[in-house]
Amino acid sequence: RTTVWRRGPRTCCPAITSTETQCPIKHCFLFIFADLLPAKNGEEPTMQFLLEFVEILTNYIRKTFDRSTKVLDFHHPHQLLEGMEGFNLELSDQPESLEQILVDCRDTLKYGVRTGHPRFFNQLSTGLDIVGLAGEWLTSTANTNMFTYEIAPVFVLMEQLTLKKMREIIGWPVGEGDGIFSPGGAISNMYSVMIARYKFFPEVKTKGMAAAPRLVLFTSEHSHYSIKKTSAALGFGTENLILLNTDERGRVIPADLEAKVIEAKQKGYVPMFVNATAGTTVYGAFDPINEIADICEKYNMWLHVDGAWGGGLLMSRKHRHKLNGVERANSVTWNPHKMMGVPLQCSAILVRERGLLQGCNSMCAGYLFQPDKQYDVTYDTGDKAIQCGRHVDIFKFWLMWKAKGTVGFEQHIDKCLDLSAYLYNKIKNREGFEMVFNGEPQHTNVCFWYIPLSLRGLSDGEERRERLHKVAPKIKAMMMESGTTMVGYQPQGDKVNFFRMVISNPAATRSDIDFLVEEIERLGHDL
Amino acid sequence: RTTVWRRGPRTCCPAITSTETQCPIKHCFLFIFADLLPAKNGEEPTMQFLLEFVEILTNYIRKTFDRSTKVLDFHHPHQLLEGMEGFNLELSDQPESLEQILVDCRDTLKYGVRTGHPRFFNQLSTGLDIVGLAGEWLTSTANTNMFTYEIAPVFVLMEQLTLKKMREIIGWPVGEGDGIFSPGGAISNMYSVMIARYKFFPEVKTKGMAAAPRLVLFTSEHSHYSIKKTSAALGFGTENLILLNTDERGRVIPADLEAKVIEAKQKGYVPMFVNATAGTTVYGAFDPINEIADICEKYNMWLHVDGAWGGGLLMSRKHRHKLNGVERANSVTWNPHKMMGVPLQCSAILVRERGLLQGCNSMCAGYLFQPDKQYDVTYDTGDKAIQCGRHVDIFKFWLMWKAKGTVGFEQHIDKCLDLSAYLYNKIKNREGFEMVFNGEPQHTNVCFWYIPLSLRGLSDGEERRERLHKVAPKIKAMMMESGTTMVGYQPQGDKVNFFRMVISNPAATRSDIDFLVEEIERLGHDL
Repeated sequence: RTTVWRRGPRTCCPAITSTETQCPIKHCFLFIFADLLPAKNGEEPTMQFLLEFVEILTNYIRKTFDRSTKVLDFHHPHQLLEGMEGFNLELSDQPESLEQILVDCRDTLKYGVRTGHPRFFNQLSTGLDIVGLAGEWLTSTANTNMFTYEIAPVFVLMEQLTLKKMREIIGWPVGEGDGIFSPGGAISNMYSVMIARYKFFPEVKTKGMAAAPRLVLFTSEHSHYSIKKTSAALGFGTENLILLNTDERGRVIPADLEAKVIEAKQKGYVPMFVNATAGTTVYGAFDPINEIADICEKYNMWLHVDGAWGGGLLMSRKHRHKLNGVERANSVTWNPHKMMGVPLQCSAILVRERGLLQGCNSMCAGYLFQPDKQYDVTYDTGDKAIQCGRHVDIFKFWLMWKAKGTVGFEQHIDKCLDLSAYLYNKIKNREGFEMVFNGEPQHTNVCFWYIPLSLRGLSDGEERRERLHKVAPKIKAMMMESGTTMVGYQPQGDKVNFFRMVISNPAATRSDIDFLVEEIERLGHDL
Repeated sequence: RTTVWRRGPRTCCPAITSTETQCPIKHCFLFIFADLLPAKNGEEPTMQFLLEFVEILTNYIRKTFDRSTKVLDFHHPHQLLEGMEGFNLELSDQPESLEQILVDCRDTLKYGVRTGHPRFFNQLSTGLDIVGLAGEWLTSTANTNMFTYEIAPVFVLMEQLTLKKMREIIGWPVGEGDGIFSPGGAISNMYSVMIARYKFFPEVKTKGMAAAPRLVLFTSEHSHYSIKKTSAALGFGTENLILLNTDERGRVIPADLEAKVIEAKQKGYVPMFVNATAGTTVYGAFDPINEIADICEKYNMWLHVDGAWGGGLLMSRKHRHKLNGVERANSVTWNPHKMMGVPLQCSAILVRERGLLQGCNSMCAGYLFQPDKQYDVTYDTGDKAIQCGRHVDIFKFWLMWKAKGTVGFEQHIDKCLDLSAYLYNKIKNREGFEMVFNGEPQHTNVCFWYIPLSLRGLSDGEERRERLHKVAPKIKAMMMESGTTMVGYQPQGDKVNFFRMVISNPAATRSDIDFLVEEIERLGHDL
């Protein structure tokens, strides 16, 4: 049977069923699902389907990097749910034709957000690296699982070598230590607290929190909310997570940490864990690790460095001093899927002391980790994880490292930090712009208010604050409706809504920074 | 500048540097990393690179389904680490040429395991669905994050609709309830315990486990080890996880549950959570949910059903009765990446009561979940998760559902169960085979020993047990060395190593089952 691929309008064949390959209305031939591999003789249709499909993806990629393309084509949830131009999200009992599947794919991309667009600045993870993308395509084609060497020999070794390299870059002697890739920074941070607890109170593993005294954890008021989620999840309780004061730049004040440690001890609590953030989410601040490490050593506390966002700076000879002292940490979170531009998900938890990760999490399930295999089973990593099945997150990162070299990552990071300095210098004295804190940002985060004309004469006070609070959301909404660019905003502490610009997108240039500034002015001037 | 793609031996250009596009030795043109998008004029090289790359992947796919191809080309860790035929896993400072990147990709696939091969039966997740694969390629091209509607509008809605459909299939009225996709069954099970604790002792979120009495959890001795990992991680302690006895088929004995609940209460502990497994990892047993639900209601305990492996049977009108009572569960884990053939990772935690997931995990981070957005922010799902960034796991599943329809999943599941019945009937009375338990398996798990000729005359006793224990590992090692097929083995309780055959691979046919049986005989006959 020869089937011929037809590219018609989607409305052509509403009556097609799962067993037909010929359209009953227009009598053209169609591919249906059953034709694809592993069906007998499925090779040709599969290759044609995949090529057709890849054409959709490559067109999308091409347009993503084209500045005349919108960043997004915004629609409200109810609009998409009602079905835009026939794009039907509902699932049904009967199969669709492969032709329709391709249309669904086009529509999915059409109504999504182009996170690789040169003017997408909305998140810490932006950009679309082509080698990383290829890595992810290969990963899904290999479709395997990290838990044993048996079914992921190459990936397990790549993970091991890459983690070692990361530990060397952190500065642990000869890259000693341990680590694992996890599904994101929040889970990596969760690992750090689990391991710390296991180190100090190993009996909690078997007896529960009742076996430990009242334990307290410390983190910056500016730190990522995953530390708080972890305190709740692991049974510490959010009240036993003590927030540390920061200076005006969002960096932890070490004296405040020491005072709070002493206070906790006086109450009879046991200070156990300190999280120092390397690159806070909003300000991009780097906590002073060395001073925090001194206090951790003095009071015998675990030092974790959350470098989910700032860890990437370790790749740069120019900027890595911002993490000075990181080699004194007991554990480090580092997300290559943020500053290093690796496709989502790619996050590592790195641990200085070997054996803790295994000790903390191993349950020795006989059906998975058989000691009598024919190869060296120390390469089976699954029992270190809190997961059983674990997605292969390493390959895209490894492949990008091969393609860029360490120097390529360094260039990317230096370029992004240069761009943020350019933005900072452009707006720090520009009319209508007001910086949230003074001085050049430590990371690529540039935090600022845009002051519409109508607010510029107003003196500082409740009215100005209230009105200013509404400006960023309004500009953002217009930005999204027009689809020209995207940047995040939020309040922080007593500061009303301000824009947080971040640059991790390798496609961004100075002209895109100029565009953003002018776009904010265009949209916000008359508010 | 015109660059010409060259396919030469990898040894051609050892001297190429990151800034050259011409090979200094053979003077051919090469693509280097810097040529790809977002580089200026990077379109053409990018498209060529991706097409070349897709050819590698499609060749791999073609061969994966070809039974004359090996399932794997086994090498020991030290062999791969030493560098097989120039395949160098080490990372370096300088970039490689794109040509070398393509060679690395070929090598990565060459030394990996073909989990989609018709004769790969090693894991619960097998097979390579072409539409699911396309879904994953699109997902990585879109490269976004599930935490807000803002940056994943289509995917967030797909997740919502798909979860509702799954809840309808479970049998919760009009699909009411809540849920989220998580990075795997272990994390989904972790959610269930967290939510149960929040339901009964919400103050643990803020005050920690000290705010609750001594809580105990119950699960089958045959259940997945993630329940034990979760008990350790969340601060309950593994000693407070009480293992339930099972019948000879591996199903929980309800009377044992009730007796242990009463015993725990008598000790002053609080029984809080029961996990019933729908499809155990080794035997494929389905715990009797209705009888367990009766006990949970009587003693006011949370009922979780771990259907990571068996949940897929809900799609089959013929087999869903095995999960009768699942609609009485408070939460259900269901991994489409196992029995339903969706590429890794794809796991859902479904919760009957709305609001608990949010209440349990929300921390209301102002910088991510701004209440003053222009759209309905109830669609922002991030604060329900213990993760912050969350990979898009829904699209491939949604796309497969579109392509297959509910009926397509049903056909797949029925076919796999038919195949396992075929295997069971083939070997149950076959010379040299011995079943681990009597009767037709409930799931596709078929557990058996192969008895080599030399052991057949031996009477039951310690010597036979010891020798039999070594048979499966030996056969497995030979299987892997010859690369012809892969099937798992493990001990369980007092049973020595036996094979656990599972069928979830859509490519498998009766001839592959025949092959497996004959291959085991061929390799094991003379042991």
